[in-house]
Amino acid sequence: MRNRSCLSIVLAAGLGTRMKSDLPKVMHEIGGLPLVGHVVKALQSAGSERISVVTGPDMPALEKLVYELAPSARCYVQTDRLGTAHAALAARPALDFPADDVLILFGDTPLVTAETVGRVRKALADGADLVVLGFETRRPFGYGRLLTENGRLVAIREEKDATEEERKVTFCNSGIMGFGGAQALALLEAIGNSNAKGEYYLTDAVEIANAKGLKVVAVSGTEIETQGINTRAQLASCEADFQARKRRAALETGCTLLAPATVYFSHDTVLAPDVTVEQNVVFGPGVKVAKGARIRAFSHLEGAQVGENCVIGPYARLRPGAVLGAESRVGNFVEVKNATFGTGAKANHLSYIGDASVGSKSNIGAGTITCNYDGYLKHRTEIGAGSFVGSNSTLVAPVRLGNGAFVAAGSVITDDVSRDSMAFGRARQTVKDGKAKQLRDRLQAAKDSKS
Amino acid sequence: MRNRSCLSIVLAAGLGTRMKSDLPKVMHEIGGLPLVGHVVKALQSAGSERISVVTGPDMPALEKLVYELAPSARCYVQTDRLGTAHAALAARPALDFPADDVLILFGDTPLVTAETVGRVRKALADGADLVVLGFETRRPFGYGRLLTENGRLVAIREEKDATEEERKVTFCNSGIMGFGGAQALALLEAIGNSNAKGEYYLTDAVEIANAKGLKVVAVSGTEIETQGINTRAQLASCEADFQARKRRAALETGCTLLAPATVYFSHDTVLAPDVTVEQNVVFGPGVKVAKGARIRAFSHLEGAQVGENCVIGPYARLRPGAVLGAESRVGNFVEVKNATFGTGAKANHLSYIGDASVGSKSNIGAGTITCNYDGYLKHRTEIGAGSFVGSNSTLVAPVRLGNGAFVAAGSVITDDVSRDSMAFGRARQTVKDGKAKQLRDRLQAAKDSKS
Amino acid sequence: MRNRSCLSIVLAAGLGTRMKSDLPKVMHEIGGLPLVGHVVKALQSAGSERISVVTGPDMPALEKLVYELAPSARCYVQTDRLGTAHAALAARPALDFPADDVLILFGDTPLVTAETVGRVRKALADGADLVVLGFETRRPFGYGRLLTENGRLVAIREEKDATEEERKVTFCNSGIMGFGGAQALALLEAIGNSNAKGEYYLTDAVEIANAKGLKVVAVSGTEIETQGINTRAQLASCEADFQARKRRAALETGCTLLAPATVYFSHDTVLAPDVTVEQNVVFGPGVKVAKGARIRAFSHLEGAQVGENCVIGPYARLRPGAVLGAESRVGNFVEVKNATFGTGAKANHLSYIGDASVGSKSNIGAGTITCNYDGYLKHRTEIGAGSFVGSNSTLVAPVRLGNGAFVAAGSVITDDVSRDSMAFGRARQTVKDGKAKQLRDRLQAAKDSKS
Repeated sequence: MRNRSCLSIVLAAGLGTRMKSDLPKVMHEIGGLPLVGHVVKALQSAGSERISVVTGPDMPALEKLVYELAPSARCYVQTDRLGTAHAALAARPALDFPADDVLILFGDTPLVTAETVGRVRKALADGADLVVLGFETRRPFGYGRLLTENGRLVAIREEKDATEEERKVTFCNSGIMGFGGAQALALLEAIGNSNAKGEYYLTDAVEIANAKGLKVVAVSGTEIETQGINTRAQLASCEADFQARKRRAALETGCTLLAPATVYFSHDTVLAPDVTVEQNVVFGPGVKVAKGARIRAFSHLEGAQVGENCVIGPYARLRPGAVLGAESRVGNFVEVKNATFGTGAKANHLSYIGDASVGSKSNIGAGTITCNYDGYLKHRTEIGAGSFVGSNSTLVAPVRLGNGAFVAAGSVITDDVSRDSMAFGRARQTVKDGKAKQLRDRLQAAKDSKS
Repeated sequence: MRNRSCLSIVLAAGLGTRMKSDLPKVMHEIGGLPLVGHVVKALQSAGSERISVVTGPDMPALEKLVYELAPSARCYVQTDRLGTAHAALAARPALDFPADDVLILFGDTPLVTAETVGRVRKALADGADLVVLGFETRRPFGYGRLLTENGRLVAIREEKDATEEERKVTFCNSGIMGFGGAQALALLEAIGNSNAKGEYYLTDAVEIANAKGLKVVAVSGTEIETQGINTRAQLASCEADFQARKRRAALETGCTLLAPATVYFSHDTVLAPDVTVEQNVVFGPGVKVAKGARIRAFSHLEGAQVGENCVIGPYARLRPGAVLGAESRVGNFVEVKNATFGTGAKANHLSYIGDASVGSKSNIGAGTITCNYDGYLKHRTEIGAGSFVGSNSTLVAPVRLGNGAFVAAGSVITDDVSRDSMAFGRARQTVKDGKAKQLRDRLQAAKDSKS
Repeated sequence: MRNRSCLSIVLAAGLGTRMKSDLPKVMHEIGGLPLVGHVVKALQSAGSERISVVTGPDMPALEKLVYELAPSARCYVQTDRLGTAHAALAARPALDFPADDVLILFGDTPLVTAETVGRVRKALADGADLVVLGFETRRPFGYGRLLTENGRLVAIREEKDATEEERKVTFCNSGIMGFGGAQALALLEAIGNSNAKGEYYLTDAVEIANAKGLKVVAVSGTEIETQGINTRAQLASCEADFQARKRRAALETGCTLLAPATVYFSHDTVLAPDVTVEQNVVFGPGVKVAKGARIRAFSHLEGAQVGENCVIGPYARLRPGAVLGAESRVGNFVEVKNATFGTGAKANHLSYIGDASVGSKSNIGAGTITCNYDGYLKHRTEIGAGSFVGSNSTLVAPVRLGNGAFVAAGSVITDDVSRDSMAFGRARQTVKDGKAKQLRDRLQAAKDSKS
């Protein structure tokens, strides 16, 4: 397909009223990526160098999103909603310069794969003028049936128009289409609106193309990848299918998932072989985990890199910018944000490490907090290699601990600590003999007087 | 139904020995509410103004529970266990003053809906003297079959007495019944015990009423709502059905549930539209979440109110009395109990905020603890608007921070801090140069000598 | 079976290349126990006093594991991989002293139960010379069919050799076999390798034994217990079956599991009746929970004992050596390791209690940390009965608090506190009036200058 140009038009104007949401439908997410993002990614992987997205009026957030996803994409607004062919023609400026392949997809059909898009393009490359993507289903009721003869697609028959025989056909229309560039604009413009609703339907292109004697074919995808989303329940169901796909891939990579159904992936999660993922782990966007690492139960990772043979969790939270060197450990109830851990560094318990670097083999005691925020700006904490930060310490950034520094437990550290030095920032203990009993007696009396 | 009075009798005397529990069976919970509570709630929603509960002997906890659920309810004790009709007659003092509708339900059948109870009442209002609630099932084996002719229920046929033809009937007896008030007591008293076990069976009312020429009909509920609970496995299965019902309702409301099967609701959870709930969230009793809020993964909420556009979690724990204003945030490993957050207030990391108020736009640093308990009484912490509490601070209640107050990181605050003032409660740092290395050498020697 | 000796040979030499792992296949885990460990445990329960494991070359970690699992077990190395019979003969030194029963099992078939092994042994005790374990399946395709006549197993027919009629047989070969000790070695040695692959197949023993006129029978296990593991997906599927088995057992014991599918057990988890387990709980190895305890959501337990009526979690992490007395409580974001809690002791919030003892009815405030590690050695913290440790305290071990001691909130405690005494280890608070506003102005200016 390298030598064929490709223009894709993604129809994304739908309001999605059945979602009962203020958000445009295609901005709802699957695997942490908006629906339309999945379609754009699949098109990019399938080599479509030009992508146009047709939005509804007043959807600036969607336009912004599209440009983030694909800076070279173009957005067009469909002002009135007069059917799918009308929507496609909203991208008329793009169609005026057609590519070899012109694909039309839907922003609310996120699971379509690059492989399947590739099969549509292959059919065009093999000489088809119009390609319809179909799918086999055990429940064809309500779908348009794809009627084929001798390798040609002769008609798309809607449920209501189908004969009893035709209703038994289980090969159905996904709506996704590919047009040979030479025919695309002419076919779209030939579509009329003489139907009950007075709308322009893309599917009519099949009849028109056949009448012109063009070569019309169908290629086959799976039912799962062609499902569209109209309700929150369908969104949840599509998310489940997406997760199942990612879990299978992780197992095939050679990862152990102790309970695959409880591991949630993002669209871009990367796990190396021999990674073990325990129960109830959530991977937000932007996570890479290296070989031999173990992600323990109840961990939550976003925008983080986990090095070889690290052990994370249980209950570890890695936030964007967490970069953990090999053999390092982040334990329970520990949050790491925008911080690097050197090889073998450890923060095992109840800590917040933000905007920091922790040198190799350093040990961060339980309850340590880096105070990175003064209410206005963020500041960095730099901890050298081989350091020991005692438990319940407070490191007030900006601050630096040299290699081999030692911070006594319970200290507040506001100034730099030089290499191999010990820092104390805590009060000396005093004891009042027998006073606890007196206090208890007094408190008990107070409690009694209240009740 | 407004103009018809209604007396309901809930049979709840069973010990539930197959539960292997010290707790009376109907006190086990579904969705955080005891089984009998679900039945009482459905009856209240269906407009039954009089509710009687038949308990077993020595179940004071159950009686207490019933009065909490419905202060006007009456409890009656069934001393001997001689069958369902005998149980119903334990409520004889209530039956002596019958209502227009007399309903008999079971405390261990928690999923029956107000709508279905309403259908039973509707049949009575339409002139039936006796109404039996049935359900269609694909596995009728073992159930009594409801035999109907021309809209009348002519018999309930037990499995063992059924002909081969009758066994094919898939409409079965749930046990739930409605009596016209004029006939209720007479029918119940007419039931005898000439059967193998010598017990009094409610189902016999059907034969008696038909023999008297009364109008006997069946109405239909679903199999799920009529399932009874006898074992822990059935309890778990019923809980799963209850959760599925709540999840569907949340999706239909317009909430996004990233993984519906991992979200657990209580009987009274209220979510507004466009609320997003991530994976693995537990809603205990008494939670309300306003529009646009996001409940992140691994959060646990009980008795809490979450304002518009709040972001909670991951790993947030909201306990009873947590009331969060709009746009506020409670982050990871943070517990909030009996505390209010003003608009835009934040406690993002590793904190315990109990018996407190946090003013709008205030920022609570990581590791902050409100010390609300002295071992005897609870005390309040009041934090003004626009305050900044540095990380790892300890606020010893009772204590007040004025608006715009600033607490230095690592401080112990025992006295009030006035408006716009800074408070310090921490020791000054000292450093001993090169001492860390000496300490390490000493500790290494100690370790070597031990091994 | 008490009076019959039993030698078992567990074939565990497979590399498991389809696992894509550096770990030998049988060392992957189900329920926290390596696959081969499940087989060894089942054999021990079934009374097999001699166990031999056949490993591949260069698997020292596996050999070590076997000796840990069963100190009296023997390991033998199969140098070349020439089929199952060849593998079994790698244990020739063991076979030279046969027992009454000689069993051959597979290290990658972990779910076989002691009961099923017992049935194989029973058949040998009843006079069979050769016993094959079969299973009924709805999908027999690809399995060898067990062809029986008059209670005898006449042949194992491989898929490719089966007639159309034989293919309909749904009773299939699991591969697990029992030999009468008198025949075992002779039968194994009689197996040849004149087949396509030139390998020695155990299944050939059936034909040989029948030809000799020996008594050959089949006994039946379940499909689940005879499934082998070759891929990570099969490992996950087997884990799911194992968990389902444990969940059913817990419900039958009389435990309430609010959401059984979200509770993960280890091979050795012990729950008493009337234990309640909420959603999303993970039991690692070595956990015992006493009657009436409640394990709240999102808790993670390993190597811990939980006393009667304890309440643990949500978000409690109990690590090895946590021993909780009756009525004690460990709350959210609290980690307990190698520490005992007396009756009614509490640590409810955000604490780390390691290498410690907490006396009965003592209360550990939120944010308390025991500093048990100095980077070289672990030290103990001993807290007497009826003590009160204020929030955010730091207890620097080794340290002892006497009975009834009181530690002020925010203290660092480095020295012992005597009985009924109060200890302070914190700085006195100072306030700078109006300085917070000045600081904010300065910080705002700094922020402005940066942007």
